[in-house]
Amino acid sequence: MERIIYCDHSATTPVKREVLNAMLPYFCDNFGNASATYSIGRKSRIAIEKSRENVAKAIKSEVNEIYFTSSGSEADNMILLGIARANRKKGKHIITSKIEHLAVLNTCKELEKEGFEVTYLDVDSNGVVDITKLKSAIRIDTILISIMFANNELGTIQQIDEIGKIARENNILFHTDAVQAIGNVDINVKELNIDALAMSAHKFYGPKGIGAAYIRSGIIFDPVIIGGHQEHCKRAGTENVAGIVGLGKAIEIATSNINMHNKKVSMLRDTLLNKLENSIDNIIVNANIPNKLPSNINISFPRNRCKKFTTYA
Amino acid sequence: MERIIYCDHSATTPVKREVLNAMLPYFCDNFGNASATYSIGRKSRIAIEKSRENVAKAIKSEVNEIYFTSSGSEADNMILLGIARANRKKGKHIITSKIEHLAVLNTCKELEKEGFEVTYLDVDSNGVVDITKLKSAIRIDTILISIMFANNELGTIQQIDEIGKIARENNILFHTDAVQAIGNVDINVKELNIDALAMSAHKFYGPKGIGAAYIRSGIIFDPVIIGGHQEHCKRAGTENVAGIVGLGKAIEIATSNINMHNKKVSMLRDTLLNKLENSIDNIIVNANIPNKLPSNINISFPRNRCKKFTTYA
Repeated sequence: MERIIYCDHSATTPVKREVLNAMLPYFCDNFGNASATYSIGRKSRIAIEKSRENVAKAIKSEVNEIYFTSSGSEADNMILLGIARANRKKGKHIITSKIEHLAVLNTCKELEKEGFEVTYLDVDSNGVVDITKLKSAIRIDTILISIMFANNELGTIQQIDEIGKIARENNILFHTDAVQAIGNVDINVKELNIDALAMSAHKFYGPKGIGAAYIRSGIIFDPVIIGGHQEHCKRAGTENVAGIVGLGKAIEIATSNINMHNKKVSMLRDTLLNKLENSIDNIIVNANIPNKLPSNINISFPRNRCKKFTTYA
Repeated sequence: MERIIYCDHSATTPVKREVLNAMLPYFCDNFGNASATYSIGRKSRIAIEKSRENVAKAIKSEVNEIYFTSSGSEADNMILLGIARANRKKGKHIITSKIEHLAVLNTCKELEKEGFEVTYLDVDSNGVVDITKLKSAIRIDTILISIMFANNELGTIQQIDEIGKIARENNILFHTDAVQAIGNVDINVKELNIDALAMSAHKFYGPKGIGAAYIRSGIIFDPVIIGGHQEHCKRAGTENVAGIVGLGKAIEIATSNINMHNKKVSMLRDTLLNKLENSIDNIIVNANIPNKLPSNINISFPRNRCKKFTTYA
């Protein structure tokens, strides 16, 4: 039998047993609808609010600035569509980069259809957004800058502190898609002047189907999913209690262990890279920069050099 | 210790053990991203497509007419916002009823802001939509009729076959919010001329945080959550594999047992109603009609007659 070494943690991670164990009581036993006021409903409400506290603590936001969604993509949609549509009168210009996740890029394209104008910034060969170009892109009607915290393919971490400062100085809202960063980078949304942030539990050993948006209090935004009064009337639908509990547990574990996790993962990365470099000539390591996720390797193999490896089907 | 008898299955149901058991392998073990082409990703893809088949089989649709969402509310949004926005040029009038779920009512209000006109039909004292009034509400620019299959508070089942026929004859799309009906009523979307339908797993002993939309093939609609290519580019976000598996298992069980389930539940309902009527004078049974969910009782107690019951806190 083939032994599989899973190396695609940027795509998704397994749920940690501890996380699953935290979720289990909320399927068959504590199954109450969190909107119900009787005891079994209140148990769900308490569990949800505990998770919200965990998320707020992890990114140093206020508790009421956290909204649970069904994914990082939904969180990006909630932030981009929600803020742009509600602040249309303030301006119609948005700045983002060309290497954002499709949840940002395609949402920006939708906003263009709705009359917004979007500047898509180039990045250098390491995937870094040029701060000077960002500054020059700012217009009097720019309402939102959306730059991902860390890139999913290259692992490049952007100069989020710089971008946050520039946005704040220019009175522009700053959103960062932190789907790849949470659990790998210590994030303080207040210090970094981040106004909105998207995350997804399944990237940090939580379950799929649950994400969260941080939106700084005071920011006006329209809901994307409309209906009942859940999430302060900002995101309708019966809460995914087990999923929310899983996200809350996973972020607690992930953020309390960042340094240890990164040390271990950096070591594994270096070992793998060394072995690859020793086995294959002319290997190209892309985005080989210090400011990069330790969990990421992006390499190009020169053609015809991979013969010694069999294809895994 | 107090014994709790849970009677709010219209709000939510516990996850059946069988359903949870079907979900469990997809958290820690078969955790692959369904968009990945390697083996662990393909396992997730296969599980998702098996669930899609189960849903299609349950409502007699085609497999490619099923889209997984994060809730019944999101499915209603996807259908109403998606169809209305994409078919704006065909007409701007929508018909619904005053007793729809907020996921429909508030979404219709959003569409009014976007320039659509909505007729909200009255219902009679049993919660039944008057077919004559529905017919008179139809205009040359009516593009969509949205009437729920069964009401969440009264249990009233609408004359879906009649409404479907009228919609089809007038070349108007017909959406039904079937969140309360799935698992209680045998639904054949083709025979009933239903063009779109919303469901939510946690109403039929599946998990929270997962729903599905049926949208007849050929109908044009815009996505509500924008990003990656999941769900035929109609609903972005990494798939909630465990949730989808849970929905698929739950709908299989629920729809294969409808007759037995309804017989049992009707008996329990009649027993409870008899006891209540024998214990309390002048009890009022609302929507006491044959065409009603067996799982629903809606009663009014005359003031000062409930002394013998202690309040449950």
